[in-house]
Amino acid sequence: MQSASLDSLFTPALLLDRARMLANIERMRAQAARFPHVRLRPHLKTNKCIPVARMVAGEDDPITVSTLQEAERFHQAGYRDILYAVGIAPAKLPRVAALIRAGAQMTIILDSLATAEAVAEFAGREELAVPTLIEIDTDGHRGGLSPDDPLIVEIGRRLGPNLVGVLTHAGGSYDARTHEEIRRYARMERDGIVAAATMLRDAGLTCKIVSMGSTPTALFAESLDGVTELRAGVYVFQDLVMAGVSACTVDEIAISVLTSVIGHKPERGWLLVDAGWMAMSRDRGTQNQAMDMGFGLVCDRYGTPIGDLVISSANQEHGIITSRSGQPIDPDRFPIGTRLRILPNHACATAAQFPAYNVIADGLVVARWERFSHW
Amino acid sequence: MQSASLDSLFTPALLLDRARMLANIERMRAQAARFPHVRLRPHLKTNKCIPVARMVAGEDDPITVSTLQEAERFHQAGYRDILYAVGIAPAKLPRVAALIRAGAQMTIILDSLATAEAVAEFAGREELAVPTLIEIDTDGHRGGLSPDDPLIVEIGRRLGPNLVGVLTHAGGSYDARTHEEIRRYARMERDGIVAAATMLRDAGLTCKIVSMGSTPTALFAESLDGVTELRAGVYVFQDLVMAGVSACTVDEIAISVLTSVIGHKPERGWLLVDAGWMAMSRDRGTQNQAMDMGFGLVCDRYGTPIGDLVISSANQEHGIITSRSGQPIDPDRFPIGTRLRILPNHACATAAQFPAYNVIADGLVVARWERFSHW
Repeated sequence: MQSASLDSLFTPALLLDRARMLANIERMRAQAARFPHVRLRPHLKTNKCIPVARMVAGEDDPITVSTLQEAERFHQAGYRDILYAVGIAPAKLPRVAALIRAGAQMTIILDSLATAEAVAEFAGREELAVPTLIEIDTDGHRGGLSPDDPLIVEIGRRLGPNLVGVLTHAGGSYDARTHEEIRRYARMERDGIVAAATMLRDAGLTCKIVSMGSTPTALFAESLDGVTELRAGVYVFQDLVMAGVSACTVDEIAISVLTSVIGHKPERGWLLVDAGWMAMSRDRGTQNQAMDMGFGLVCDRYGTPIGDLVISSANQEHGIITSRSGQPIDPDRFPIGTRLRILPNHACATAAQFPAYNVIADGLVVARWERFSHW
Repeated sequence: MQSASLDSLFTPALLLDRARMLANIERMRAQAARFPHVRLRPHLKTNKCIPVARMVAGEDDPITVSTLQEAERFHQAGYRDILYAVGIAPAKLPRVAALIRAGAQMTIILDSLATAEAVAEFAGREELAVPTLIEIDTDGHRGGLSPDDPLIVEIGRRLGPNLVGVLTHAGGSYDARTHEEIRRYARMERDGIVAAATMLRDAGLTCKIVSMGSTPTALFAESLDGVTELRAGVYVFQDLVMAGVSACTVDEIAISVLTSVIGHKPERGWLLVDAGWMAMSRDRGTQNQAMDMGFGLVCDRYGTPIGDLVISSANQEHGIITSRSGQPIDPDRFPIGTRLRILPNHACATAAQFPAYNVIADGLVVARWERFSHW
């Protein structure tokens, strides 16, 4: 496409700042390069977009996905080494097998003996190896077994030749507020996953892959001794939650929603825009952070924050902009039709509300990159 | 399609209980029929689905939409009388004009003199009538002018022949908890919109359409004197928020998400399922209601609630089920692979996460109805 002005877009529209995205990708690459024994396995669930994926990982690089649809789409696009990092439901194994037979090196995860039995039986019946990681819980926030749970060895045995390693995700790091807190999560994540790997090896089992990571812990880890791969996803776009965690700054956020002013409420000091929760998502991830950003931080059309303006409440197609300090907004500063950019709380959730990224370079729309959705 | 078992669906999947939906549609029709001078103008933003729309409204019936994409899709499907009930941004007028020229009776809304001027100028330049309602705020929750604001007359004059009436939406009724509170919102909504209509008429201006409504106030209004049309949308599916408002009961909710158990966390009493926020949406609309349902209420595969189980926290593709009372869940009751149904907080938000409805009748999947998204 030819370059076009932001005015050519119908609002609300999803914008992707290419320069910021490339800098974010480079930052993570540089961090990973400090650990030559570790491979970076980017998570593509945030972008679900082939042109973005190509900037993040080459076809020979390992990738992570959150749905089998992502696995199928990215495999069609040429990626081969794919980790599906959500506990497998046995009914999904035929779709995994179809990918393996089509040439993908698909890896799955699980954390129970029942699932390990289902996988081992399925693999035997289908005469197929189904590479499997045992999920380890290093911060108590979701699934996985404790690093010292003897069940790990039992599951490993039951998996037989399908066992390839262990995986953890310190999603709890999203509760961190300082670099020091993030580093503590990173140590916990590393120590736990290495302990689990050691337990398997001590029992005479194989553990080739020792996988950990989240955007905060991947960016701030100081030691990855014993780890073989590092996963992270949201770092490519960053968002207000990551800024609140201190994993990035607000001006590193590459994604935003372009919106138009559709009304004023001078007696309340409000501005109404056409970015409601259908555009921003209902994610309120900054609600419990030091700075509650409502449904998003308001910037001018060039992406510079405007004082302390946020979308403080939202209906399906309406956003209400107020000042965090309660100062009424002067409607004359924002006539009807004024275009604003809103930085999102959570890139994964906001991007999922749109069919495509409008890629911005030097203030112009230079490309439209489709993204996919669903399962 | 042939009828199929729920087991044939890949999880997570969106289910629509046809019998419940038809009963919900009938309930609203019966309520509207009590007011023979009032036309029901269903809002189709919740379903965004042509087969659902056909059950809700005939092609000659008036409909409401929240995006111009809905207007275009439903017009293509045969609907003509379409109200776009979000304050217009002037840059959207060419899309409105294209619909009018294609034969749609498109009505738009606005609440400022600046927008009225833009509409009047556009209509004059294009030699087109652009039927317009002035938005009135009867409960202080969003856009619109106070019913006694003299600006209403000024805007009406500026609109000239484009003025066709007034509109309000008592979205504040979602904060009600009892039928009596809903009735109070309905009275406020009616009194306010009729006052605004009277002000226009007293000034010698036309006011053919006097439009009000929300699912709670439409279902419980006792008087609609002076009102010409009633709008509501979520009533077709209902949801946990509406149950919390007392506008429906939990067993009237027609929409749910089918999910599979993918893990247990016995030491915490948790169950993990493959319906995270990507499936349920991030909507936490019951958070401030008497009964906080987390991300959704857990039912068995037939749709019957299981004690007080809810999805209490969610990641992108993981839901964590706990008991509201804190009682640990016995994992043996829910083996890996068990299928459950989750009732959503907010039908509009959850349905928007999926590409299609799997229509359920007598416990079988009898149809797949596509829905659309975006703007």
